[in-house]
Amino acid sequence: MSLIVQKYGGTSVANPERINAVADRIKRFVDDGHQVVVVVSAMSGETNKLLQLIKDVSKKPSPRESDVIVSTGEQVTIGLTALAIQERGIKAKSYTGSQVKILTDNAHSKARIINIGTKNIQKDLADGYVLVIAGFQGADENGNITTLGRGGSDTTAVAIAAALNADECQIYTDVNGIYTTDPRVVSTARKLKSITFEEMLELASLGSKVLQIRSVEFAGKYKVKLRVLSSFEKNGDGTIITYEEDHKMEDPIISGIAFNRDEAKVTVQGIPDTPGLAYQILGPIAEQNIDVDMIIQNIGHGGENDFTFTVNKSELDRTLEILEGMKSHLKAKQIIGDPNIAKLSLVGVGMKSHVGVASKMFRTLSEEGINISTISTSEIKISILIDENLLDMAVQSLHKAFNLDQ
Amino acid sequence: MSLIVQKYGGTSVANPERINAVADRIKRFVDDGHQVVVVVSAMSGETNKLLQLIKDVSKKPSPRESDVIVSTGEQVTIGLTALAIQERGIKAKSYTGSQVKILTDNAHSKARIINIGTKNIQKDLADGYVLVIAGFQGADENGNITTLGRGGSDTTAVAIAAALNADECQIYTDVNGIYTTDPRVVSTARKLKSITFEEMLELASLGSKVLQIRSVEFAGKYKVKLRVLSSFEKNGDGTIITYEEDHKMEDPIISGIAFNRDEAKVTVQGIPDTPGLAYQILGPIAEQNIDVDMIIQNIGHGGENDFTFTVNKSELDRTLEILEGMKSHLKAKQIIGDPNIAKLSLVGVGMKSHVGVASKMFRTLSEEGINISTISTSEIKISILIDENLLDMAVQSLHKAFNLDQ
Repeated sequence: MSLIVQKYGGTSVANPERINAVADRIKRFVDDGHQVVVVVSAMSGETNKLLQLIKDVSKKPSPRESDVIVSTGEQVTIGLTALAIQERGIKAKSYTGSQVKILTDNAHSKARIINIGTKNIQKDLADGYVLVIAGFQGADENGNITTLGRGGSDTTAVAIAAALNADECQIYTDVNGIYTTDPRVVSTARKLKSITFEEMLELASLGSKVLQIRSVEFAGKYKVKLRVLSSFEKNGDGTIITYEEDHKMEDPIISGIAFNRDEAKVTVQGIPDTPGLAYQILGPIAEQNIDVDMIIQNIGHGGENDFTFTVNKSELDRTLEILEGMKSHLKAKQIIGDPNIAKLSLVGVGMKSHVGVASKMFRTLSEEGINISTISTSEIKISILIDENLLDMAVQSLHKAFNLDQ
Repeated sequence: MSLIVQKYGGTSVANPERINAVADRIKRFVDDGHQVVVVVSAMSGETNKLLQLIKDVSKKPSPRESDVIVSTGEQVTIGLTALAIQERGIKAKSYTGSQVKILTDNAHSKARIINIGTKNIQKDLADGYVLVIAGFQGADENGNITTLGRGGSDTTAVAIAAALNADECQIYTDVNGIYTTDPRVVSTARKLKSITFEEMLELASLGSKVLQIRSVEFAGKYKVKLRVLSSFEKNGDGTIITYEEDHKMEDPIISGIAFNRDEAKVTVQGIPDTPGLAYQILGPIAEQNIDVDMIIQNIGHGGENDFTFTVNKSELDRTLEILEGMKSHLKAKQIIGDPNIAKLSLVGVGMKSHVGVASKMFRTLSEEGINISTISTSEIKISILIDENLLDMAVQSLHKAFNLDQ
C-alpha cells in the first residue's frame, strides 16, 4: 500500500464527464490498495470567468477580495470530485485550503506556503477516506483566504505530498510526460522516462510549461518523488522526476531543448566601467515590475561595457523608455531593442562532465548558417539568442545532432 | 449614527450593474454617517447552476459536499460587492460564514445558527469598514461548511443584526414592501407602512414569499427591527415589521389576505374515536418527509372522526398511497384526496378584539356564492379552503369588504 498524491489541472476536471474520468482513475488506485489524496484546480475556464467579473466591478481590485472570489473555482471542483468518488462507493471528503489548513503568508494572489496542518487529514486517511483538496489556495494566520498564484495547484500537491511523506506525487496534465523538445517543432521529439530536478528546473523556467517551476523547487527541497502523466490516457507511466545528484554513465548528455519566442533583447552599449553598473541599469526596471531573464555583461574595447538582457516582448517598449530616461546619467552611447529574437537552451546534467557540448552546439548551428547573437551558460544549460525566424531549424538540427530522438 | 444591517437577495446582485447599484446605495448610507453591514445572496441563477453541476456527477449527493459547492455562490458575491464598495472610496471587507464565524449545527443544507462570533467584525466596524457577509452559510464546530437552506440569507441578516444589536435590519427584495394581498390578484392592493411580527409570521407561512419565515421568527425572538424594501427603487421606506404586542385603536382590523394554490386536501373519513388518532395518521406521513400544513379534526355523527389536513399538491399521490396502506389498521371508512382547492387566510392582530370578523368573512363569501369546505382559525388568522377556481374572486371581494384598499 502506497500513499499517493494526485494533482489534476483545469483541463482534467473541465466538466462533469472529465471529473467522472478522474474518479474512475482514483477508484483504480483505491482498488489496488493505495491511499489517495487528490489536489484539484478550478474547472478550466472558471478562473477566467471569475477574473472577468472582478474586472467588471473594479478597475484596481484589492488582492484580498480577488482571492476570496477566485478561490471559489477550486472549491466547486473539490465538492464535485468528492461526490463523483462517493458515487463509486468510495468514502471521500473535500477540503478547502483553509480547512486543511494550508497556512500561507498574507501576500494575496502570490502567497507562499508556510505550513500544512496534517492532523485532520491524517485522521481521515486512517479512516479510509480519499481526500480531495483545493489546489492553489490557503489561508493566512488571520484566516484570510489567499491564493498561490495561477498554476499554484502543482505547488499545493507537492507540499501536501511532502507534509504527508507520500510515496509519490503524480501531476496529471494534458501531456503524457516531459519531452526532449516541443513535438510540434520536432516530430521525432521523444518522451523522457526520467529527468533530474535540476534539468526540470532549467526546462521549466525556459518555457516547457508542463510543471510550475515553484512546485519543482519545492519537490527538490523536500525530496518528493514527482511524476508527470496524462489524465487523458488510461495507462502510461509518464516522466518521473528524480533527484539523483550524480550523473550516471548511461545517462544521455543532453536531456532536452527548451525555447522561448516571447523574449526581446535589450542592449546598452558603451557604458564607462563603474561599480554597480548592473544595479544602476536593472534597479529601475525591476522597480517597474518588469521581469528580466537572461543577463549578459561584457567588457568591450577601451574599458567600455556592453550590457545585454532580455525581457518579455510586451515589456520592450516600456523598458526602452525607462532606459532612454537614464541614458545620459549612465553615459551610455546607445540603447538598442530587438524583438525579433528567440531563446534556445540545451539542458542536461550530462554536460557537467562532458566538455565539447558547447562546441558541438555551435558547430551544428554554424553548419546551418544560424548566427548566434548572445550566449549564456550555467552548469547544466547553454542558452543562446538567435533570429526568431531560424528557431525551428535550430531546434530540429540540434535535436538530431545530440541524438535526442533515440 | 446608526448601525444598519442590509440584506440583498439574488436578483439585487444578479450582475455587475446590479452590484454597482447596491454599492451606490451603501455609499449613501455611509455618507449619511451610518455603519453598514451587508449580507448578500448568490447572484441569481448561480445556485441553480451549481445544483445542476451536482446533479451531473451524483444521483444522491452527500449534503456535506453539496454545501461546499453551493456556498461558493455567496462567496463570489461578497468579494464582488466588497470590491464595488472599495471602488467608491469606502473601506470594505468580505467575510464568509466560516470566517465570521457563524457557528451552526451540522445539519447540512438546513443548518441552524447556534452562535455568531462578533469579535472580528466588531473590530472591523470600529475601524470604519463596511462588512460584506455571505448569507445562507456557516460552519459547524469542526469547520465543515454548512448552509441554512435556500433563502436563508434573510436569517443570516437578522442573526447578524441581533448579534451586533443593530438599529435596523433592512431586507432588500424585488418588491417595495408588504401588501394587503397579491397586487396581481387585487389591483387595489395597498402597501402596508407597518405590520406586526405575528401578522408577518402568519402571512409568510401562508404564501407571501417576501421574507423567510425563519428570519421573521428570529427577528421577533431577538426584537430586531425589520424593514422590507425594494433594491430597485432609489427611495421608499418599505414596510416596517414591529413587535408591538398591543393592538392600537387606529390599527386596521385586518392587515392582509394571504393565499396558496399549491396545497391539496386529504380527508380520512369515519375513523372510530381512539386516543392518539392524529399521531397514528400523521406520524407515518411525517416520516416520509411530507410537510403537513392545515390540520382539522372533528367528531362526526356516531362518535366517528373526520380528519382533514393539507399537503403540497406534488405530495398528494404519495400521501394517499401511505394512507391507503393504513386504511384497515385505522378502521377508516374512506380516504379522499382533493387537489382542486386553494387556501385563503385573513390575517390581522385586530381580529383578536373584534368579534364578527369571521361572520363578516363568511357572509361576504356566501354573497358571492363561494362555498367553504374547511375552516381553521387562530388568534390572528382565519384560514379557509375553497375551490381553487374561485380564489381570485374570493380574495377580491374580501379585500373590498374589509376596506383593505384604503
